[in-house]
Amino acid sequence: MRTSQGQIVVATRGRGTTNITEEVQRVVRESGIATGLCHVFVQHTSASLMLCENADPTVRRDLEAFLARLVPDGDLLFQHTDEGPDDMSAHVRSILTNMDLTLPVAAGRCALGTWQGVFLYEHRTGAQRRRVLVTTQGD
Amino acid sequence: MRTSQGQIVVATRGRGTTNITEEVQRVVRESGIATGLCHVFVQHTSASLMLCENADPTVRRDLEAFLARLVPDGDLLFQHTDEGPDDMSAHVRSILTNMDLTLPVAAGRCALGTWQGVFLYEHRTGAQRRRVLVTTQGD
Amino acid sequence: MRTSQGQIVVATRGRGTTNITEEVQRVVRESGIATGLCHVFVQHTSASLMLCENADPTVRRDLEAFLARLVPDGDLLFQHTDEGPDDMSAHVRSILTNMDLTLPVAAGRCALGTWQGVFLYEHRTGAQRRRVLVTTQGD
Repeated sequence: MRTSQGQIVVATRGRGTTNITEEVQRVVRESGIATGLCHVFVQHTSASLMLCENADPTVRRDLEAFLARLVPDGDLLFQHTDEGPDDMSAHVRSILTNMDLTLPVAAGRCALGTWQGVFLYEHRTGAQRRRVLVTTQGD
Repeated sequence: MRTSQGQIVVATRGRGTTNITEEVQRVVRESGIATGLCHVFVQHTSASLMLCENADPTVRRDLEAFLARLVPDGDLLFQHTDEGPDDMSAHVRSILTNMDLTLPVAAGRCALGTWQGVFLYEHRTGAQRRRVLVTTQGD
Repeated sequence: MRTSQGQIVVATRGRGTTNITEEVQRVVRESGIATGLCHVFVQHTSASLMLCENADPTVRRDLEAFLARLVPDGDLLFQHTDEGPDDMSAHVRSILTNMDLTLPVAAGRCALGTWQGVFLYEHRTGAQRRRVLVTTQGD
């Protein structure tokens, strides 16, 4: 067994999702590991990683509408507003949807279900540069 | 160190939780791994995995009541309704409660707390067949 | 590759967050593992682990205000009230914020982003003693 690490940098265009499935699969393929685990990690507190339905973009639109209602920007509850009305809501959204994601590796690929894609979710309204660390362990 | 993979298939009877702790412990036992990690993964986007109190079924009843209120089926916010009013709500519930779960392995078993059980959470109202991949890594 | 396990015990003073980043980094350092993964796990169902902004305590204050509104103690929806009005809400909060957390290890440390801290989140209103199991795997 061995460990292999790689990095993905995602330039986001503000709030919304970016499908990074192919980038993650490429890092796993380059590791040469056939069976094991792949850990994906975003080194920020206002962006997250998630598995989501990958076929119909309306699913991500609806998810965004849901989160915008659940965690409103500029909520009067929030005191941490240093970087604007989307600052604290971005932290809450990231915590609810998580910054770490672990996937099984089988036959040299992340063994995702047919409809599962790996998405980086940018929660700030402005464009950002997000670092994603991918660690693969296995045989 | 080595990696061992196994699969569990869960036939759900529609929305609700299934305790799969014993099935996961069996896969870990059969791997022969004494110390390490056990990763559990559901290969779908409308079912999830979670740790939950395992003694009083009212906890899962209350959790279901909470999620049904938080993410209402047929919410007018949702446009992705191809498979009915529980389609998009099932995706949101899965994202909030997660499709991946990693557990420590010690003394040949998942080292769960006394009250922790591993549950598959079916979020669709109809019966489904769910594939769960279990990857154990360790010594 | 090898596996190393350690334990952290956190004495909480009731609902709120405890920064355990340094304790986790110490367990990783003592493992001698330079590259791999670090898994952190709380063996309870009413406390959780999360990555959160580590600089401004107002972020955790706001998060607590958000969760208190989202999952109200004593909600009439809840039947599981054996241990008081914070019993069921603590279970729901733990499930939404998770009991397991996996971090990349690089150069002998958890490779956290600049603003990421690891926090134990106590969801019960009374003081508790929480066991956290840390498993490090790598080279």
